[in-house]
Order: sequence, then C-alpha cells, then structure tokens
Amino acid sequence: MKIAIVGTGVIGNGWITRMLAQGYDVVATDPAEGAKERMRQAVDQGWPFAEALGLAEGASKERLTFEKELADAVKDADFIQENVPEVEELKQKVLHSIDEHAKPEALIGSSTSGIMPSELQENLQHPERFVVAHPFHPVYILPLVEVVAGKQTTLENVERAKAFYESINMRVLLVRHEIEGHIADRLIEAIWRESLHIVNEGIATTEEVDKAFTHGAGLRYAQYGPFLTFHLAGGEGGMRHMLKQFGPALKKPWTKLEAPELTDNLYNKVVSGCEAQSNGMSMSELDQNRNEFLIRLYDLVQEYWPKEQEKTNV
Amino acid sequence: MKIAIVGTGVIGNGWITRMLAQGYDVVATDPAEGAKERMRQAVDQGWPFAEALGLAEGASKERLTFEKELADAVKDADFIQENVPEVEELKQKVLHSIDEHAKPEALIGSSTSGIMPSELQENLQHPERFVVAHPFHPVYILPLVEVVAGKQTTLENVERAKAFYESINMRVLLVRHEIEGHIADRLIEAIWRESLHIVNEGIATTEEVDKAFTHGAGLRYAQYGPFLTFHLAGGEGGMRHMLKQFGPALKKPWTKLEAPELTDNLYNKVVSGCEAQSNGMSMSELDQNRNEFLIRLYDLVQEYWPKEQEKTNV
Repeated sequence: MKIAIVGTGVIGNGWITRMLAQGYDVVATDPAEGAKERMRQAVDQGWPFAEALGLAEGASKERLTFEKELADAVKDADFIQENVPEVEELKQKVLHSIDEHAKPEALIGSSTSGIMPSELQENLQHPERFVVAHPFHPVYILPLVEVVAGKQTTLENVERAKAFYESINMRVLLVRHEIEGHIADRLIEAIWRESLHIVNEGIATTEEVDKAFTHGAGLRYAQYGPFLTFHLAGGEGGMRHMLKQFGPALKKPWTKLEAPELTDNLYNKVVSGCEAQSNGMSMSELDQNRNEFLIRLYDLVQEYWPKEQEKTNV
Repeated sequence: MKIAIVGTGVIGNGWITRMLAQGYDVVATDPAEGAKERMRQAVDQGWPFAEALGLAEGASKERLTFEKELADAVKDADFIQENVPEVEELKQKVLHSIDEHAKPEALIGSSTSGIMPSELQENLQHPERFVVAHPFHPVYILPLVEVVAGKQTTLENVERAKAFYESINMRVLLVRHEIEGHIADRLIEAIWRESLHIVNEGIATTEEVDKAFTHGAGLRYAQYGPFLTFHLAGGEGGMRHMLKQFGPALKKPWTKLEAPELTDNLYNKVVSGCEAQSNGMSMSELDQNRNEFLIRLYDLVQEYWPKEQEKTNV
C-alpha cells in the first residue's frame, strides 16, 4: 500500500513521520520553495519520538520520496492525505486535482480543521471516496483522528478509512454528523476565543491565561474529558449533583459563550452518558484512579513546564 | 497559625487535607447532618496522595477538629476559607457571619467559582481582609489558586493571602481585574457549554466528546496552555503564522462562541506574549521539550484512561 501526502506543512510532515514509522511507503508533494528540505528536516526531528513509541517492522525514513508535481505524487497512491492551508477555495482546487489524477478507488482524507466534508467533496468526480480525517499536532505522537463522512461518502469507504487509520495506531473517532469544526476543534476554538477575550480586555496576559489552565484544569484533561471531570467533581452524587450545583451558572456570564437550555432531555443525556462511561467503576474507584494518575503526572510535568520568567505574576 | 474551614463539601474537604498535610491546625464547620463523618472519610481518602506529594514536619490528621457552630470554629482562626454552595445569597449570609465572629485581622478567602469579590465583601464590617481564592479539584493535589481582590481589599491583605497560599505549596495566580468566573473557569465553562451544545444537538455522546479531548488536545494542555500550544503548532513562524493561518477562522461558526475582533493591538499582545513566555527557548527547543513530555505522558496516561465500553464509537 502506497501513501501520498499533499502539502508538507506542520501537519503534513507529522503524517509523513507517523506513516513511515508504521511501515508504509510515502510519496510527498508541495509546490513551495524548499519544501523538500524542510520535510526531511521535520521527519528527522520527529523520528526519535516515533521510534520511542515503537516502529513497525521494516519502517524506514528511506521509504520517503518527494515529487514536484502533484499528479506524479498521487497517481499510484492507494491512500492520499491532503494538508494544504485552511482556505476553502484552495482546498477545493487541490482536492479536484487529486481526484483527477488519482486511481478512482484510492481513498482521499483531508486534514481540514473545520470545513465540512460535504462542501469539500461537492465537485469531485469520485466524491464517494472522500472523508475528513482531522489529526492533532504532533501527528506522530497524538493518537486521535476525527473521521467525518460527507453526504456522498459511502459507508464502505468510511470503514476503509477507519481501518487504515487504525493500522497506523490511531484512535478513530467517527463523527456522527458533520458540523463546522468537527468536535475537538469546537472545544479548542471555544477555549481559544475565550482566551483572546480575556487578553483583549486586559484581565490577564497570555502567560497568565496559560498558567490558569496548565496548573489546574489542564492537568485533569489529559485523563478525563469535560464530562467525566465534572462527574468526578460532584462527589458521590456525580453529575446529578454537579448539574444541581452548577446548572444555574449556565445563565451567568462566566464566559462569553451562551449555553443551551438545560432541558430534561439534555440533563438525562449528560447524566446517563457519564454513568455509562464510568463502566461499572464506583465514584471512589474513579476518584482513586484519577488521584494516582495526577500524582504521577504532576511529578512528570514539573520537569517540562516552561521555566518561569523573572517577573511573573504566577 | 490556626485555620478555619467553613463548608465541608468536596472543595472544603480538599482544603482541609492540603492544610493538614502542610502542618497547620484546622478547625472545620458545616451544618449538614453527617458532615463530620464525611469529612473524616474524605480526609482519610485524600491523605495517601497528600503524603505522596510530601508532608510538612509535624503534619497530622489528628490536628483536625470539628465544631457544630460556625462562631466557635472561626473565633480563634487566623485564616478562614469559605466553601459553601455556589449561591450568592447563601455565601453572603455565611460570610457576614464569619466576619462577625472572627478576629478583625483574620484573613477570609472564598472558594467561589465565579462570583466577584466586590459583591461578596459589600456588606462586611471588615471587607479589607476578604479575597476570592479559587482552587481546583482535587485541592490537595492541583497547585493552582486564583487570588482575586475586591474593590475594598487592601494590597497588604492580598500579599498576606498570597504568602499564605504559597506556604501550603500552591501556585498563586493574582487576577488583575475581577470578572465573573475569574480566568480558569471562563475557559472551563466555555468548554463545558460547547460540550453541552454538541451533546444537545446529537453530534456526539458525552463519551465521544470526552475522547475527542483526552486523546488529542487534552494531552497537550497539561504542559502548555492555549497560547503556547498554538504558538507551537505554527512551526518556525509560531503565533505569527498561526494568526495568519487561523485568524480568519475566528469569523467562522467553529464554536457557538463569538470571537473578539483581531485588532493590531490584540495581535501584538498575543504574539509578544507568546514570544516572552518562550523565555529564550527556540521553537525547536520548545518542540523537543513538548515531544519528550508527550511521549512520557502518553505512556503514563494509557494506564489510567477509563476502560473502553463494549460498543464504543472511538
């Protein structure tokens, strides 16, 4: 199986490193001056980390080639990952070109951060083999990929894409309905926008915002997401208690983001969701598990937090 | 120095454990039936983790007492931490009572998640000794405390409060201007509200939202906050490149949260902030540092992620 990578920025080079490390042949293309050299350098930098996570048999940086022309890069590929800048017209143009030169059965994944697959596949000749497959930087370390089908994507091709990303050791999250920003970037973008508001209004510096996150909630989010974190903060009552305690705060201006109405339906989805996720573990087992993790994480992260500036406010 | 803890829910009991572990005498009070027993149990549960982080000389669970009456608990205290439920009228009533019975020079901190200190100190006889001091669950492990002064708080008392929280091994973030939700909870609440929208609209289950976070961005946020994370995602160009690449996305519906205008002023604050935070480290040094951390974290967190359910979508 042969992989083509179209666009060799930070994300494209991250994919290349992961795919080589998992034992695939990769051919890359990018029209920018000096792209080939930057790509080699990026792969060299990422390689020791991919190695630390474990290389597949036969994996080698030597199995990477570069083509100047997109057509040459994609023509023999079984799988093509597109990573050009986040501009819809540009992505559409490049995808059109991939679609034209690739084998009709080759799968095409787009790394788009926020554009919906139905829009990107609209003008393809073979739209049924197109998915959004959105990874996270650094791609050769972080395991998550969001796979989103467009209206014209076939179920069979979604399954093929899922199997492919699993073959390169990723955790595939199939997004049920397409939406701008998919799932993860909606959360990241919400944090980002609120952070910008805080800096814009002079409440805190960028460093203070960062520390408000990394020294508290950010530590928790490596293990449990927003729902289980709140479930655990509720003590024995879990999410039921939290919604009673903090449900009213949804009406307050604690962020610039307006909340949905906490209807019975939403309440039930959230409470039963958290209870199902706990997967038979009692609150005190979950608590114990989180504490053991946090103690070890806190020990670890102190080696890696950025050094304090001389005159810091934290 | 003697500490009083008013309100022994999840947060109050977390404070008690941290303060005992740091070698203080603590007296607690809570009017709820069975509060004393639940408090003892919570301290027993948290103690091994406080121990793992290191106990101060002479620290002992035996130095904890419980008083039925608030007046008895606070009358000899030098420092009082209030942790009653997040209902403004209730907090005001309890703080009024603390203010009345405590020594006039005793410091009072409130754990409120979102209420501004000026509102809480309004009707106190000695408002100058009141601060918001907002910790993160579990309080005996997570180091962050946001300290916020109200209009009537004196600078001297802010300094006293800062010194006290530092004496119990916390990282004090002095919030420059009071604002609903302080800093960290504005970010947490933004994530929470966007997560609720996603579940409400049937885009994903609570478990899928959690995994979209913990298997990707959540891993990064233990080390670098929202600003340095984006700075690092920009490659050699750092935040300058990111704002060029993703600035336009601020206008898109990638979250329900509206972004501020990306003015020159905001652009400069964000770029120069990130450059200052890097503290002389080059992009590739920051990158290397993040990768080393992520490899070790990924190894660690896999032991602690919740077990998969049988029919999961991830």
